Amino acid sequence: MEGLRELSRNHVLGNPIRLAIVLYLLPRGKVLFRDLLRVLEVTPGNLDSHLRALEKAGYVEIYKVIADRPRTAVRITEKGAEETGKYLRTLKEILNEVSRGA
Amino acid sequence: MEGLRELSRNHVLGNPIRLAIVLYLLPRGKVLFRDLLRVLEVTPGNLDSHLRALEKAGYVEIYKVIADRPRTAVRITEKGAEETGKYLRTLKEILNEVSRGA
Repeated sequence: MEGLRELSRNHVLGNPIRLAIVLYLLPRGKVLFRDLLRVLEVTPGNLDSHLRALEKAGYVEIYKVIADRPRTAVRITEKGAEETGKYLRTLKEILNEVSRGA
Repeated sequence: MEGLRELSRNHVLGNPIRLAIVLYLLPRGKVLFRDLLRVLEVTPGNLDSHLRALEKAGYVEIYKVIADRPRTAVRITEKGAEETGKYLRTLKEILNEVSRGA
């Protein structure tokens, strides 16, 4: 039951688009804004607002890279990786409980 | 990537409180409103609004049981169980991908 409460209280990762962003970032570390846009198939404004929410919570950093021209990129922070890991462990515990119970 | 998109688009189960409700219901089938209130530690108004959203989506049915006095209860529907199962499979696939990648 503790897991269900924890899950229902995480307001940062409780949003499915924000969860998808950190799940994509976790094994990769960083991604270009335009690649994330393509992967998630969301609008630029929508992606931007969720990235800012994640940045405000300290889960990601938004920065510029200079290639042929300046591009926006996102990297996951240590805090973001830790919190995402915790959230995943909670999710897995609940999924295991549900599988056993069903 | 398909899983991430699916996850980020499920507006019913994308809310963590609604996800916690159906995860609790899945192995049990039904629950009294007051028991769910205790398990999730949310306010009655908050729980009520999430249950109505789940009912509107056809995932649960809200009904009355008469014991010592009338009580509100919730049962998961066939559609709710199917959709929750699908969501869990998507989540598990993503968790496995993330575990392999990290």
